[in-house]
Amino acid sequence: MKNKFAVGIDIGGTTTKFGIVNNAGEIIEQDRIPSNEHEVVEDFIDDLYTKLMPMIERAGGVKQFVGIGIGAPNGNIYTGTIEYAPNLKWKGIIPIADLVEKKFGLKTKLTNDANAAAVGEMMYGACKDMKHFITITLGTGVGSGIVIDGRIVVGHDGFAGELGHTIIRPGGRQHKSTGMHGSLESYASATGVRETAIEMLTQHPEEPSLLRNYSINELTSESVYECAMQGDNIANNIFEFTGQILGESLANFVMFSSPAAIVLFGGLTKAGNLILNPTKKHMEANLLPIFQNKVKLIFSELKESDAAILGASALVWDMNED
Amino acid sequence: MKNKFAVGIDIGGTTTKFGIVNNAGEIIEQDRIPSNEHEVVEDFIDDLYTKLMPMIERAGGVKQFVGIGIGAPNGNIYTGTIEYAPNLKWKGIIPIADLVEKKFGLKTKLTNDANAAAVGEMMYGACKDMKHFITITLGTGVGSGIVIDGRIVVGHDGFAGELGHTIIRPGGRQHKSTGMHGSLESYASATGVRETAIEMLTQHPEEPSLLRNYSINELTSESVYECAMQGDNIANNIFEFTGQILGESLANFVMFSSPAAIVLFGGLTKAGNLILNPTKKHMEANLLPIFQNKVKLIFSELKESDAAILGASALVWDMNED
Repeated sequence: MKNKFAVGIDIGGTTTKFGIVNNAGEIIEQDRIPSNEHEVVEDFIDDLYTKLMPMIERAGGVKQFVGIGIGAPNGNIYTGTIEYAPNLKWKGIIPIADLVEKKFGLKTKLTNDANAAAVGEMMYGACKDMKHFITITLGTGVGSGIVIDGRIVVGHDGFAGELGHTIIRPGGRQHKSTGMHGSLESYASATGVRETAIEMLTQHPEEPSLLRNYSINELTSESVYECAMQGDNIANNIFEFTGQILGESLANFVMFSSPAAIVLFGGLTKAGNLILNPTKKHMEANLLPIFQNKVKLIFSELKESDAAILGASALVWDMNED
Repeated sequence: MKNKFAVGIDIGGTTTKFGIVNNAGEIIEQDRIPSNEHEVVEDFIDDLYTKLMPMIERAGGVKQFVGIGIGAPNGNIYTGTIEYAPNLKWKGIIPIADLVEKKFGLKTKLTNDANAAAVGEMMYGACKDMKHFITITLGTGVGSGIVIDGRIVVGHDGFAGELGHTIIRPGGRQHKSTGMHGSLESYASATGVRETAIEMLTQHPEEPSLLRNYSINELTSESVYECAMQGDNIANNIFEFTGQILGESLANFVMFSSPAAIVLFGGLTKAGNLILNPTKKHMEANLLPIFQNKVKLIFSELKESDAAILGASALVWDMNED
């Protein structure tokens, strides 16, 4: 391989992380900028350039690079545009791949951030030899990447794999930004765990709980985890309930694409078996017998941001082989 | 193409249909035998041979054939076996492809019956130029075939695409044979419509309805359709409810694989707009904006049995090109 490096960029709702990746799949240098402090996308790209270009120069300059891969919310692999991303400041359709390509003079490809993480997992993580798996990111929201026959599922328009917005409790809890009722994301995210905590504390006013020592603002998935580890009953019930909803959803996904594994990423996975055990139990209970005890339910071996940077960079390694 | 014909066989819960297909995708002769009158599968194959072999002879004999393709419930494309099909008499793992291959002296391939129908739709039906679509069969049960990037999704073990068994009403109506609660099939099948009818008539004992002129045994999706067409309120509500459940499920499927179209097959589609309109309404209402008003929701242009015979035969046309 003549060129030896690729850039991977992971645009998140709060922070944009980027790194220089060598052809062994190692991130040799990385940095970050805020995602949402720029009114127009051109200012964001100027900031990115200021930090990233010196990194590219240190690795030998643009001639040593195959290109730039970007993962972003609502990133469309077909068009290279970010389209109506609810968590980003830049509204409408943003031709980010074109803008970055012109700025850096490097071939640039874009995909959905969750899909980028799935590609990272496939190339460098727990799913290295798997052709069928699903990644689920349990963060502020719930993201997903679906791999079938070794390829990311993007659908006819590039937007496939929005599993966090599938409905698992019709008529249930309303999602703050989409307005939908009963979507997976409204329960099995950090935000969802917080809401469940508030609900359970309100519904059982008589039951003592360590969680009552926290103010409403301090009630987070982390504080629920800490209380659960100290044996708090309500805190444990919160994870049991979250795992139930997640497990039921995963069962539906398994009956769709029959993956060999489901890989969980993101902040909620810090709860370990507190979230894994009920999820697995309720997934198995909702599967037809032919699917039972077959699907590996595992945590990612990669740091979430690393997976996304690696996966994004993989977009342009592939392109070079065309 | 040296060989000019293929056999397509569609093994259903009640009837097995089979036909001779030419390389223009036309069924030049077809026939059927019962599926469930034979205690052992060898007797079934003997019966099939008695009717099918003369058809093969009339088309010029086995030398004129590329092979035999079979679609069957729980048919596994990887192993050629029918595995634990709940609606068939032969229990356990049945090596049907091997048995048929030996009996007829023709290369034989097997797939899931719903997947065979989807292949038929892709090669000869409404989805001829589509690479991303889902077929849903609304019959006694609910079957499905998923096509992504022009290929049937079979998953890591060959069993993907059991969308009828995904849960859309957690804790809801119990499915008679699986024991699961709230699966799509327990509502959006002919059996489900009948159950909804009984429930609604029982829950509203004061409300007059033409459906009350039928005995419990006569209450079928057909009688509900006839009453709905005469303006019967409860009968119309039954289709509205069925369409709501189906539409909510379809929205979840769309957010998984983002298909260009969903094609509906099977007995319930005879209800036409009575089922199509509420289904479309509730599908759209449960989609994120980026998916809305994009997915074609259509009825198949093929007869269901023709689609399955054509799709099954396509298994061996493909093989010949290897």
